[in-house]
Amino acid sequence: MTKGDLTRQAILDRATRLASQLGLGGLTIGALADEMELSKSGLFAHFRSKEALQIQVLEYGAALFVEAVVRPALHAPRGEPRMRALFEGWMDWARTSPLPGGCLFVAAATEFDDRPGPVRDRLAQLQRDWLSVIATSFAKGAGEGHFLADQDPEQFAQDLYGIMLSYHHYSRLLGDSKAEPRARRAFETLLAAATAPLLPTTNR
Amino acid sequence: MTKGDLTRQAILDRATRLASQLGLGGLTIGALADEMELSKSGLFAHFRSKEALQIQVLEYGAALFVEAVVRPALHAPRGEPRMRALFEGWMDWARTSPLPGGCLFVAAATEFDDRPGPVRDRLAQLQRDWLSVIATSFAKGAGEGHFLADQDPEQFAQDLYGIMLSYHHYSRLLGDSKAEPRARRAFETLLAAATAPLLPTTNR
Repeated sequence: MTKGDLTRQAILDRATRLASQLGLGGLTIGALADEMELSKSGLFAHFRSKEALQIQVLEYGAALFVEAVVRPALHAPRGEPRMRALFEGWMDWARTSPLPGGCLFVAAATEFDDRPGPVRDRLAQLQRDWLSVIATSFAKGAGEGHFLADQDPEQFAQDLYGIMLSYHHYSRLLGDSKAEPRARRAFETLLAAATAPLLPTTNR
Repeated sequence: MTKGDLTRQAILDRATRLASQLGLGGLTIGALADEMELSKSGLFAHFRSKEALQIQVLEYGAALFVEAVVRPALHAPRGEPRMRALFEGWMDWARTSPLPGGCLFVAAATEFDDRPGPVRDRLAQLQRDWLSVIATSFAKGAGEGHFLADQDPEQFAQDLYGIMLSYHHYSRLLGDSKAEPRARRAFETLLAAATAPLLPTTNR
């Protein structure tokens, strides 16, 4: 790493923390300059525009997520062990995130879903990339015989995303101490449903 | 309704739309005055403070939600029919929301989860109220024999909330046309798991 790379990384690190508090849309070059006590012109030389800064913060956050969650899970054997590793890494990420304002991506998703433009496009692509890691891991697990072959990997990804989003809201907004055990139980139920059919309903 | 009530309701209606676009935190008396071409002092007389305005917008949104989703579902018979009515009403709310920026509560949850104060407290209470409608409906359904008695109603509520949050993100941010059929399928799986035990896993 050159000195320039280190400086850039230090700036992005601070910018990412600031974005988690202000919301990504509140992250401007001016706000970052105030926060870091740097000149706006110096930061403009690095980032050129608010949108470029916001996109680089998303890329930086995504790289942290890949290092913390995705890469370690790829060392686990395919199928159920890898899916469990992805889930555990994601839970750790949600619980121990160093970002003061919570997960940047969850907040940015509602902030930018109605703001067309390059920031929204990049955010949506990064979310699709992550959800496709889950779907692909599921499909490989089905190939290993860990999951039923007739299950839809995209369905599994959307369901797992829901478990994490609900956990996020229950723990952060509602401060519910049972949010985590419930999220774990939901994950076990999701895995179980992907490995065994439901009995026919008999109690109606 | 008096003329004053009507005026107040018209103002809250515009304020709620504006909040769905700006984020609830961006909804100030000044921003609302600009939007409505009214004087700030007139609006101050109605609302007194930014926080009071934000809280009244939450109350107004919650009242719309109760009218659109909760009240009609209470006409359905207890148990599975009522749970289906709640789900259908919630899906309709998410799909056909008149708010240009999408569900106010989903956005406000990530915006305010790290901002202690009266707005966050009220938001959390409104969310708890809604989740307890779901949990109570589930418990009553178990009493009717529609759901297994050993299932945790709070677990059901957290799981159902996850299905809706994930649907919200997949449809609004990712523009995924399969988001809705997947959400419906997840709901059917959730109901099925609440009515019948899983077979033991045999395919590992």
